[in-house]
Amino acid sequence: MGNLNKEIRDGDHPDITEERLKSTFDTHKMAAQIYNSQRAADRRNEITSAVLKIPELQDIKPLPFLSREEKVEEAARKIGILSEHLYDLVNVNDGAELYHLNNVVIGGEGNPLALHGVMFIPVLQAQATDEQKKKWLYRAMKREIIGTYAQTEMGHGSNLRKLETTATYDKATEEFVLNSPTTTSMKWWPGNLGKSTNYAVVVATLIINEKDYGPHSFMVQLRDENTHKPLPNIEVGDIGPKMAYNATDNGFLKLNHLRIPRTNMLMKHVKVEKDGTYIKPPHAKMSYSAMVHVRAHMNNTMAYFLASSLTIAVRYSSIRRQGHINPKEPEVKVLEYQTQQHRLFPHIARAYAFSFAGAETVRLYEKVKKDMESGETELMADLHALTSGLKSVVTYLTMQGIEQARQSCGGHGYSMASYISEIYGIAIGGCTYEGENMVMLLQLARYLMKAAKAVKEGKKVEGLVGYLSAPDNRHSLIDRTPEKSYDTYLKTFEHIARQQIFRAFDKLEKMLTSGLPHSEAWNKCSVELTRASRLHTRLFIAQAFARRVHDVVDFHIKEALDDLLHLHLNYELLDVASYALEDGHLCGEQMNFIRSELYRSLGKIRPNAVSYVDAWELSDMELRSVLGRRDGHVYENLYKWAQNSSLNRTDVLPVFEKYLKPLMMSARKNSKL
Amino acid sequence: MGNLNKEIRDGDHPDITEERLKSTFDTHKMAAQIYNSQRAADRRNEITSAVLKIPELQDIKPLPFLSREEKVEEAARKIGILSEHLYDLVNVNDGAELYHLNNVVIGGEGNPLALHGVMFIPVLQAQATDEQKKKWLYRAMKREIIGTYAQTEMGHGSNLRKLETTATYDKATEEFVLNSPTTTSMKWWPGNLGKSTNYAVVVATLIINEKDYGPHSFMVQLRDENTHKPLPNIEVGDIGPKMAYNATDNGFLKLNHLRIPRTNMLMKHVKVEKDGTYIKPPHAKMSYSAMVHVRAHMNNTMAYFLASSLTIAVRYSSIRRQGHINPKEPEVKVLEYQTQQHRLFPHIARAYAFSFAGAETVRLYEKVKKDMESGETELMADLHALTSGLKSVVTYLTMQGIEQARQSCGGHGYSMASYISEIYGIAIGGCTYEGENMVMLLQLARYLMKAAKAVKEGKKVEGLVGYLSAPDNRHSLIDRTPEKSYDTYLKTFEHIARQQIFRAFDKLEKMLTSGLPHSEAWNKCSVELTRASRLHTRLFIAQAFARRVHDVVDFHIKEALDDLLHLHLNYELLDVASYALEDGHLCGEQMNFIRSELYRSLGKIRPNAVSYVDAWELSDMELRSVLGRRDGHVYENLYKWAQNSSLNRTDVLPVFEKYLKPLMMSARKNSKL
Repeated sequence: MGNLNKEIRDGDHPDITEERLKSTFDTHKMAAQIYNSQRAADRRNEITSAVLKIPELQDIKPLPFLSREEKVEEAARKIGILSEHLYDLVNVNDGAELYHLNNVVIGGEGNPLALHGVMFIPVLQAQATDEQKKKWLYRAMKREIIGTYAQTEMGHGSNLRKLETTATYDKATEEFVLNSPTTTSMKWWPGNLGKSTNYAVVVATLIINEKDYGPHSFMVQLRDENTHKPLPNIEVGDIGPKMAYNATDNGFLKLNHLRIPRTNMLMKHVKVEKDGTYIKPPHAKMSYSAMVHVRAHMNNTMAYFLASSLTIAVRYSSIRRQGHINPKEPEVKVLEYQTQQHRLFPHIARAYAFSFAGAETVRLYEKVKKDMESGETELMADLHALTSGLKSVVTYLTMQGIEQARQSCGGHGYSMASYISEIYGIAIGGCTYEGENMVMLLQLARYLMKAAKAVKEGKKVEGLVGYLSAPDNRHSLIDRTPEKSYDTYLKTFEHIARQQIFRAFDKLEKMLTSGLPHSEAWNKCSVELTRASRLHTRLFIAQAFARRVHDVVDFHIKEALDDLLHLHLNYELLDVASYALEDGHLCGEQMNFIRSELYRSLGKIRPNAVSYVDAWELSDMELRSVLGRRDGHVYENLYKWAQNSSLNRTDVLPVFEKYLKPLMMSARKNSKL
Repeated sequence: MGNLNKEIRDGDHPDITEERLKSTFDTHKMAAQIYNSQRAADRRNEITSAVLKIPELQDIKPLPFLSREEKVEEAARKIGILSEHLYDLVNVNDGAELYHLNNVVIGGEGNPLALHGVMFIPVLQAQATDEQKKKWLYRAMKREIIGTYAQTEMGHGSNLRKLETTATYDKATEEFVLNSPTTTSMKWWPGNLGKSTNYAVVVATLIINEKDYGPHSFMVQLRDENTHKPLPNIEVGDIGPKMAYNATDNGFLKLNHLRIPRTNMLMKHVKVEKDGTYIKPPHAKMSYSAMVHVRAHMNNTMAYFLASSLTIAVRYSSIRRQGHINPKEPEVKVLEYQTQQHRLFPHIARAYAFSFAGAETVRLYEKVKKDMESGETELMADLHALTSGLKSVVTYLTMQGIEQARQSCGGHGYSMASYISEIYGIAIGGCTYEGENMVMLLQLARYLMKAAKAVKEGKKVEGLVGYLSAPDNRHSLIDRTPEKSYDTYLKTFEHIARQQIFRAFDKLEKMLTSGLPHSEAWNKCSVELTRASRLHTRLFIAQAFARRVHDVVDFHIKEALDDLLHLHLNYELLDVASYALEDGHLCGEQMNFIRSELYRSLGKIRPNAVSYVDAWELSDMELRSVLGRRDGHVYENLYKWAQNSSLNRTDVLPVFEKYLKPLMMSARKNSKL
């Protein structure tokens, strides 16, 4: 096993082995960078190996051939098997191990217990009193009951204050009356609400003595624990097929004056007493934390989706031969084309960048969580702003990268055998859930405008916006200084973000000065504001990438990451260059330099391309892609895969006797007349 | 019916009627612009109305609820019904009428006879001798047989010269022996090849006396005409589910030394005589024309897909209320947000632009076709270059626009009830089929480099590349001249395209001078070359849009189109501005002007937004979208739609008894111990 690339096996397609032999770095050491420790990278592989030894955990059939019912069943079947092996397979207190186990065994399309673990239990942990925890949380953790979290309504997603579901307190009986007064008030979208769960935390507008207290959480039993039939005054069901996540029964819920005990309101932070007295929570920011938790981890999820697609595309591009560069030579691997490299490699760099930015974000999240436990909320706003921007930018760029990966596979990319379109569907949900991207960008913009205002008032700002009050060069020093560090690039990104933030700020100020109400001025500036947020966030991503490369000790890993960073900085800068050209910060000569560095960089990355994706160590089982197979034996397996098609069950389909034969027969008869 | 917007009906959602009442133009007159004549626009509506009167032509169920078998059957069922009514519904010689009928009745997911009409018959028309036409074409036209065109192989798409299927001439028996020697040589992807068709034109490498004559077309009977069983030495089947087009049985075909008569080779242009003598075709460009035909029409198809998605998104945005601009006022239509306008309106402008550019392209195609009949091939290269660039740019921008439309619908955009993700899947195939986009851009680049060379040599070039030898201004005149025409913008686009074309040319020349072989130099310049092709094509689109607006007579239509053009030019220019900033052609002050025009433009478009999409006159039947309903009654119909979910057939799914109950029961039992 002297090979640096750890994916080489006997019998592999020689074209892919040829690539792996060129690796300049140890792919498993690189995995330690991606997964933040060698131990974590080891554990991933150990878990995968252990899973492979349990035949019942394998997909009964490639998932694209299953109907929705079959997908839901298949996932439930595996949950059952998993529950027998869970403690042998993973440390159940390690989120990363659980996440990996889920990716390998279940995959991204969902399962009947998805929301149970990700939302129901955490919400109970965060919002239930000790007494309530005894009643529900422990049962939930043992899976005596299965729950979900029902917040979104058909008519309202982002604007929580306008949720229409009401929980009206009835002092006489000490009950809340939960009601869905309109079609739009139905809960709509919550995962597993439709068919799988028997409990839900329902968010409803609390009303006491006709006064509206805003959204609060209530525990609602949806179905009989034994028969699973919906309880009286409850209508639940599945909302139908979606772009992806079709193993998940996203559901609707209509509550018809359902009465629940007062003690079913989750009362850790806020209370309604028997007499209807309402007691406020101690600090309002408490409720942020669940959303922020998910957002803080989304960078890594997105990096994973992007890396999955790129693993498929790059591996396939190394065995797919098509066309000639030199007409006298044999057909070349499509990976030799500069256009293909340009289509794929910058996204490889982004996947790494998102992973590194994600690690920093999670660290900040952990710090803020600790701080909050001791009542310290200073960094909460920073974290909220950062995760809002990253969530939006990272999901958007991930979507772009996955789609380019898919297209780079040509026709076969369009087949579900590539599985990239499924990954696309799964990933792209992230542009909308957990805070719609435009809304998120505008939340970050609020924070940026506050900082800009402070700077304009002569104050010094620090932390993530510190660069706003730092000294700036009139002209970028890219290609103008002998030193080889990336500071010149990062300074240029800073300049670009700063310029746009102040442009948006000035526009806003001008409108306010002209007498426009703030809300209208804000709306009229919102495109400029979102641009500012994006540029600020992309600066952060580039910085996080550079910081990581700086910290790496291993020479070969550092060198390989440095190549990716170099590509990243040149590619991203070209993408946003107009902002720096506009005020002469960059000039045409520098643009020529950046372009030539970009192209040089593609050539530099080329020999390591397969190794960069291999380093993510995504097993065939979790990739679920014929094109992305580790061994490169794509074609024969494409043929095998297609045999599963429901249309291939018989040589002649019923549609022939029913429709096609009569059509042709009547034509032939007419011809004979 | 005094309303300018013709979609207003009693009982519609007041929020959408409010929009329509604001229309400044007659939507049906605008439809005449989109569909190129009032007559064509009238006919579309007449056909839709006639179809609505035939209940059997309605979808038995919303298509997203059908399995693949059901989709294939449902489409075949409609083909059967349609064949009874065809002559009453449309003029069968009018491609536009047939296309519209197909969109309304069948939709975009395909049908068992799709390739029969689009490829099998046209190929026979183009390549069969009169005798062969008698034998197969007339039977095909009467639908006594159903055929397809099998060219693409598992291992080869773009590179026709390397097709592995062989047709070896056996002089002794006067037969061709068709063979698939390898897995990769299997035909893979041809539509309807898997299950529906009984004949196919198969493209194979012709071999006579061990000499390779390249790809040729052969008629192959696949299945018994009566039993539909595959004939001996033929293996056919379905290739499995795809991103979309799942009502189409894209198939594979393996030929095992299948013998067919010599006379089954299509011999209109090329001949193999009994003794094996090969007779060449008179002119080689003949074979282009089928591909070019499809590409010439693709702009309009893409415009249609984009307009469909935008119709859904804009209508939905006019009834969806979420959040506040002024906190004291009720929730606003999401269409009021500048970010939403910026997300949607530029794509509306593009849909119109693509339609107008498409009309010009089809006119050029018709002219070239006529010219060719009289042996004139001069414009063929222009047409080929133009359609290559447009195909690539238009499919790419369409994909972007559809995805933005989908995301602009928030969570519900993710549901198949929006149908936008299905439209996306259908449209995006266009980035790959009929010439992969990168390959297409590089084909156009070859043409551009030839023109650039001519200019460098002091020659004057004309036609589509005429601007390369036209005089240029050092500085853009945008915001620098009192006249209000769009010439300043178009000149700036010309400058941008010209600069990039010569930048790519110079880079190529420099590499060639340094001694690099042409093929390698070409590859190393290919990203720059694709950029040149894109900018050239986007210039053409802007020009075509401006030409159309110039030609419109009706004042209100002209004004409304002028608003869209204004948005288009400012938006597109911002998108490519860095090219003009780099050499100082544009300056920061002009950028401020362009931005402010862009934002002003969004406000100008706003009141007409719904009317711009209504003008495409896409009926509910063809849109197949709950969110895009003409009447705006989205929510109650979303609820109705969801009732179709297969998961809603029973209150309790089998998965409960099978997996979830045992899981919970065993946990509860353990708790009691």
